[in-house]
Amino acid sequence: MSVEEMLKKMAEGARHASRFMRNLGRREKDQALLRMSALLLEKEDLIKKENEKDLLKARDLGLSSAMMDRLILDSNTIRSMVDGLQEVVSLPDPVGRVTGMWKRPNGLRVGRIRIPLGVIGFIYESRPNVTVDAAALCLKSGNAVILKGGAEAIHSNIILGRFLDEALEETGLPHEAIQVIPTTDRQAVQALLHLEDDVDVIIPRGGESLIRFVTEQSRIPVLKHYKGVCHVYVDEFADKEVATEICYNAKVQRPGVCNAMETMLVHESIAPDFLPPMIQRFRESGVEIRACTKTLAFIRDARPAIEEDWPAEFLDLILAVKIVSHMDEALDHIERYGSKHTEAIVTRDYERAQRFLHEVDSSVVLVNASTRFNDGNQLGLGAEIGINTSKLHAFGPMGLEELTTQKFIVYGEGHTRP
Amino acid sequence: MSVEEMLKKMAEGARHASRFMRNLGRREKDQALLRMSALLLEKEDLIKKENEKDLLKARDLGLSSAMMDRLILDSNTIRSMVDGLQEVVSLPDPVGRVTGMWKRPNGLRVGRIRIPLGVIGFIYESRPNVTVDAAALCLKSGNAVILKGGAEAIHSNIILGRFLDEALEETGLPHEAIQVIPTTDRQAVQALLHLEDDVDVIIPRGGESLIRFVTEQSRIPVLKHYKGVCHVYVDEFADKEVATEICYNAKVQRPGVCNAMETMLVHESIAPDFLPPMIQRFRESGVEIRACTKTLAFIRDARPAIEEDWPAEFLDLILAVKIVSHMDEALDHIERYGSKHTEAIVTRDYERAQRFLHEVDSSVVLVNASTRFNDGNQLGLGAEIGINTSKLHAFGPMGLEELTTQKFIVYGEGHTRP
Repeated sequence: MSVEEMLKKMAEGARHASRFMRNLGRREKDQALLRMSALLLEKEDLIKKENEKDLLKARDLGLSSAMMDRLILDSNTIRSMVDGLQEVVSLPDPVGRVTGMWKRPNGLRVGRIRIPLGVIGFIYESRPNVTVDAAALCLKSGNAVILKGGAEAIHSNIILGRFLDEALEETGLPHEAIQVIPTTDRQAVQALLHLEDDVDVIIPRGGESLIRFVTEQSRIPVLKHYKGVCHVYVDEFADKEVATEICYNAKVQRPGVCNAMETMLVHESIAPDFLPPMIQRFRESGVEIRACTKTLAFIRDARPAIEEDWPAEFLDLILAVKIVSHMDEALDHIERYGSKHTEAIVTRDYERAQRFLHEVDSSVVLVNASTRFNDGNQLGLGAEIGINTSKLHAFGPMGLEELTTQKFIVYGEGHTRP
Repeated sequence: MSVEEMLKKMAEGARHASRFMRNLGRREKDQALLRMSALLLEKEDLIKKENEKDLLKARDLGLSSAMMDRLILDSNTIRSMVDGLQEVVSLPDPVGRVTGMWKRPNGLRVGRIRIPLGVIGFIYESRPNVTVDAAALCLKSGNAVILKGGAEAIHSNIILGRFLDEALEETGLPHEAIQVIPTTDRQAVQALLHLEDDVDVIIPRGGESLIRFVTEQSRIPVLKHYKGVCHVYVDEFADKEVATEICYNAKVQRPGVCNAMETMLVHESIAPDFLPPMIQRFRESGVEIRACTKTLAFIRDARPAIEEDWPAEFLDLILAVKIVSHMDEALDHIERYGSKHTEAIVTRDYERAQRFLHEVDSSVVLVNASTRFNDGNQLGLGAEIGINTSKLHAFGPMGLEELTTQKFIVYGEGHTRP
């Protein structure tokens, strides 16, 4: 069987399973999730053994220690997958929720109700724990899912998929509801992206090149997240202490993630007082500064920023700093270089806070809070499957509800259209 | 300037205008819409003169009378465009509506607020009145729009675009908010579909081949509607009078539209009583029947249905009829041949009504009402820009709200992530 045939068969199975899944109640879904969490604990040794094969191969290939870290499944990571499953169990089921119902002048009663999307293709890199996290969210939201992880985690993903499968069968659910693509053949992704009759949405999670590849090749709608070039604007009316804590947190607490600050915009009136100690603090934590011309007047030994620094997602202890002469300049800069991901203002001024909140066109806009709060958990959506920076369907972090859509239900009494 | 350069310039203009548009209040938008409606009435003669050029060309090309009908702009069609504009004025502004706000355990206040999508590319065929309808909905929802109509309506579309433009300028709005592509060059569509940096969504409206072309070529998310293969299932517990009126209405009232019934499914217990008079009534209205084997037993002179009839969107006075031996057979048939558009059940049985509503995976599912009610206006959304049969973003009819998305706004008090 060719890779294309295999994928077609998997997708048809998923389509078939999704009809069953969309009619399930919360109890059946939660039972399957609980069985999965029990199985992962029971089978810890087998999982570690398969994971060891991936680790050995990775060592042979000379993968970086950061990549090795992401690949490892030890008791801690298994425990955290189990915790993740149990968290999803605790979340409410979005399916079946009636979001509105009204009566038309002719007496028709019209309602809108949440239903699953159907079949989800989920494409990701490295971390094998994503296999379990994503499968759990898709299952709880009544979807079937086809999972394609990174080649380096293939043995780990296959064994995890096997136990997810076992849990489905033991609890009476169709095992095609969760399928791990059991090959590292790159043609498999290509084949998946062309199955528009059986797959409703593709969610890629990974680096920009993976996302671009998926977007260009896919005939199926893609929920994607290119990059986070997040800004904090420190207004002239900012509380300096608050601004310092927020900027420090946004850059340093976890610099390698998409909601970390990449450019700090500082109003020129506050710069003389705020900037030198702030930069000092950044430097003590190893942050490299890329400074605009005005900033260089305060921090003479900083590296001058070049044009490429403004749209850059450093994902590292590097920060671009720009002094602006008024708020409009900050808004223009964000409009030009931002990625519509996350932007924050620090100010005590009511009007500026309101203006920033409403004029900035990003998925999450914050006043006096760190950009690091753009996260489904932190914002109260429960677990998240990813962040969407295109505006269709769901803009920003996506939780369970964002893995559903709505249909209309209509109660008539013999109504016809005149 | 090449077509590609022209489109790039138009899209950049639209992007620029959309920043202005997204911050407008309802009053400014309604003023522009009212000015448009006044201008269309004032300039009626000029519009008819340009439309005449399209009609002459169409006559030369030997277009069908149905196509000629769709192309014509007379006092009636101009009046109905004006009515359409005024209806959009009367609709509430979806932008700025806070759909939820909650407080997190750490005190962060998180809200979700409706914002425009940004820049919309709208691609359509024949009818020039769509130029005005679509522009009005995009404007009211705070979006900028690039309009590409059919080649046969080019003069009509250009003159309409000119007056929309004039109304924007007179009321102080950026004229790039509504742009008609002033060429019939097919490269223009291709070019538009590749401007993923400046266009947020493509909405095609037209025949299946247009939609397939757009979906295959576009790197931008597409909200699309392939076809409506709508079913009415007449259950064994149906009221025969009600079933007859609904089926007749669903097929005959306007057979050329996507929400007309294409296949009637009849429970075998009710068939002997229901089917012969129903078919008789259909035939009196010129409906051709394509009958399954069991149906042929009742209607011997009907044309036997072939496999191709079941997934067919006839858009004409043709109806496929199938007798099923139980409700599951009806559900299976819909699952296999349906287009997820509109499905109705006629029954007096509570349990079957509930089951049909919840198990059928279509954008609109009705009990005891005609499929013809799948329409933004009829369901109470106000004017509609189209119907979406893919599940992403909006499933089913799309009104003003579906031309927006939501962002998160966060009110903090110096919050950082530990």
